[in-house]
Amino acid sequence: MTAKLDTQTLRNLDQAHHLHPFTDFKDYAAHGGKIISRAEHIYLYDSDGNKIQDAMSGLWCCNLGYDQDSIKQAVFDQLQELPYYNNFFRCSNQPAVELASKLCELTPERFQHVFFTNSGSEANDTQIKLVHRYFDLLGKPNKKHIISRNNAYHGSTIAASSLGGMKSMHEQTMGLNYVHHIEQPHWYECGGDMSEAEFGLHAAQALADKIDELGEENIAAFIAEPVQGAGGVIIPPDSYWPAVKKILEERDILFIADEVICGFGRTGNWFGFETYDIEPDLVTFAKAVTNGFMPLGGCLVADKVSNVLLNGAGDFAHGLTYSGHPASCAAGLATMAVYEDTGIIESSARDLAPHFNAQLQSLVDHPIVGQVRSKGLFAAVELTDDKAARTRIAPDSAAAVYCRDVAIEDGLMVRQTGDAMIMAPPFVTERHEIDNLVAKLTVALDKTARQFGIS
Amino acid sequence: MTAKLDTQTLRNLDQAHHLHPFTDFKDYAAHGGKIISRAEHIYLYDSDGNKIQDAMSGLWCCNLGYDQDSIKQAVFDQLQELPYYNNFFRCSNQPAVELASKLCELTPERFQHVFFTNSGSEANDTQIKLVHRYFDLLGKPNKKHIISRNNAYHGSTIAASSLGGMKSMHEQTMGLNYVHHIEQPHWYECGGDMSEAEFGLHAAQALADKIDELGEENIAAFIAEPVQGAGGVIIPPDSYWPAVKKILEERDILFIADEVICGFGRTGNWFGFETYDIEPDLVTFAKAVTNGFMPLGGCLVADKVSNVLLNGAGDFAHGLTYSGHPASCAAGLATMAVYEDTGIIESSARDLAPHFNAQLQSLVDHPIVGQVRSKGLFAAVELTDDKAARTRIAPDSAAAVYCRDVAIEDGLMVRQTGDAMIMAPPFVTERHEIDNLVAKLTVALDKTARQFGIS
Repeated sequence: MTAKLDTQTLRNLDQAHHLHPFTDFKDYAAHGGKIISRAEHIYLYDSDGNKIQDAMSGLWCCNLGYDQDSIKQAVFDQLQELPYYNNFFRCSNQPAVELASKLCELTPERFQHVFFTNSGSEANDTQIKLVHRYFDLLGKPNKKHIISRNNAYHGSTIAASSLGGMKSMHEQTMGLNYVHHIEQPHWYECGGDMSEAEFGLHAAQALADKIDELGEENIAAFIAEPVQGAGGVIIPPDSYWPAVKKILEERDILFIADEVICGFGRTGNWFGFETYDIEPDLVTFAKAVTNGFMPLGGCLVADKVSNVLLNGAGDFAHGLTYSGHPASCAAGLATMAVYEDTGIIESSARDLAPHFNAQLQSLVDHPIVGQVRSKGLFAAVELTDDKAARTRIAPDSAAAVYCRDVAIEDGLMVRQTGDAMIMAPPFVTERHEIDNLVAKLTVALDKTARQFGIS
Repeated sequence: MTAKLDTQTLRNLDQAHHLHPFTDFKDYAAHGGKIISRAEHIYLYDSDGNKIQDAMSGLWCCNLGYDQDSIKQAVFDQLQELPYYNNFFRCSNQPAVELASKLCELTPERFQHVFFTNSGSEANDTQIKLVHRYFDLLGKPNKKHIISRNNAYHGSTIAASSLGGMKSMHEQTMGLNYVHHIEQPHWYECGGDMSEAEFGLHAAQALADKIDELGEENIAAFIAEPVQGAGGVIIPPDSYWPAVKKILEERDILFIADEVICGFGRTGNWFGFETYDIEPDLVTFAKAVTNGFMPLGGCLVADKVSNVLLNGAGDFAHGLTYSGHPASCAAGLATMAVYEDTGIIESSARDLAPHFNAQLQSLVDHPIVGQVRSKGLFAAVELTDDKAARTRIAPDSAAAVYCRDVAIEDGLMVRQTGDAMIMAPPFVTERHEIDNLVAKLTVALDKTARQFGIS
């Protein structure tokens, strides 16, 4: 490793040369940012030595925090043994084989096949090719359209940003014209006067309506995150998924569950589709599959689909140089071993998540809190200046941005989406650290209330 | 690392659970493949202990072979220090900053900005968003069309496979309707009765014609690999690039050089655009940037483009969780240090490449060899049953597939594209190992000639 450079040198080079993701380039070049220098347990340290508690698991990926020597060692050992080989041309490698097998073991019986990519974006991109190939092989080449939801996040390739329902991305992307977006199950934002239960049914009905509009014979798939993550930790009303499930059961349409954020424990079960008792035909995974330590994503394919794909003649004309990279898959295997050996997905759902939720619920009476919602270790706190009307405090989410900035300044890494404060703490967070998280968030809320004159 | 499993167990699990890239799933499930178990220097070992000399640098990525302890150590050290953090939300990390700076230092003065991705596919996907953003900010929103070439390879996301010119991928992909393909500069395949020089000008003219057809005011960019890699190591006639350069200089169109394979020394210079004296506005890199040891790709952006992007208001609405992953960037930095400290790009171009080329040229008189072409450590040997007519030996490239299979069987990893045998040996290959490569290839050619009754 090269020697540590001082903060000013790093900031200068960063501003001069590094184009950051989802960033205002002009603003960043003028003002720069924070250099994250090292991490331990659930704490980040910047290049000036400031300590920050991470309530976001990196970017929803470091579910096990930043230690986990066994994952780091597995990567190093694999690099020694076989630092790279591809899986094209009738070749394979042990970590890819073992991780594919392990993921099939960890998911319901009908999932027996895995296709590897480098990221969730590439995996969702691959899902489109898989569902199109499936219907082509079935002699249903008209089934090309895909239904997604407003405010969904499915990644950043051009195809993945088409799948996603983010307006800002659509504005900058000449996307796919065969993706259609329906209402999101976001009661707080879109529910109006309906009860949560009514709105859940209403949002589900939007799927049936869109299928009728486009024609079932033209539709390949519906894609959805069990809980919308980047869209704002949108926990659907209890009525939503059962109604969607019924609609899907009655139609000849594949269901892709995007488990990039929900997968590997975030909602309290191994997968979000277990939490909601839904039955995807394809599952997208990434992020926590390696605890964020190595780039890796992929698609889990259920028998219904793989039986058809495996009977098709000729190549599936798709793949990445690093599909099944041995070092990435070794990290995945070591990560699965930690989840299994420690039972942390189960224990954090049993012990930590209820504590987290209870602590957060103490905020509902805060003058600027409109709603607290959580599922497992996944939570959002909506800010408002009018609890009944659920209005936002200031244009451009200025209040939530302010709240986030003061929280980070005070040593708590949280995120903001719209007027919601977003959290996804690592499963290894201890109870007193949850208390510290909520205490720091409370201080940030207090400061925000003062700043925007709400009491 | 988990214990090594025996070959039969691995093969069974592989066939049962692992969907391989660019593979006939049905055939693979029935017959399986080879488990690559470890690697040293330029040699692969399968799970039965068979030793194979790698003449493909993995998949055009392990330019430095499989040892390179300093890269492995850099990854491990970085994982200890900061195993992950994102570059969203005004955060950065030292390896990303340093690698961005280093890449700017290694390229012409006008390249001062880098956007990181996980792969070449994602990087080319990103290039489309960058060129569209550029012209949008310039108030030229009609400039959306992109010109590429037949048989180009630009990756495997839906957008990247649209950019690519591979028919098999287009058949399975509902791609982008704003990408257009022109003639490839592949004299051996498409040159007919023209001389190489004539055909080079003809292929270049196709670009001017396509621009005129679509209207310059509607075109954002031309994308091209300096030497088409996966298409078959297509070394353009000497007349091609100067003519293309002139066409581009006269038009308001950006030029994206895809250096995913050519970059970092493959054609005898650091970048293919240096070998051909061409001046891209954007450069795509991946593969050899980490010697294949870690997934990493990205876009280098010249001042002409970045000056506009950095003056735009608002976010560039694009990015990956692992954009600028600290461990991937640490691998990139360590790889750059090897290239620089050993001078191997320069020394292999000076000493090894001429020897490789001379040895290969000894094959031109072989009864089934139609052409030998090479540039740096990048080569193709075309098989034919009629040297004058340049016809292929058998349908479906059966002769080249046979030749490849017997070469691999004999311990030499080469690739086949069409009727060409393809090679891209690691730069650390020694002269006697080049001799061994050519000797083994000769044996495979002899066997192929016998098998197909040519003498």
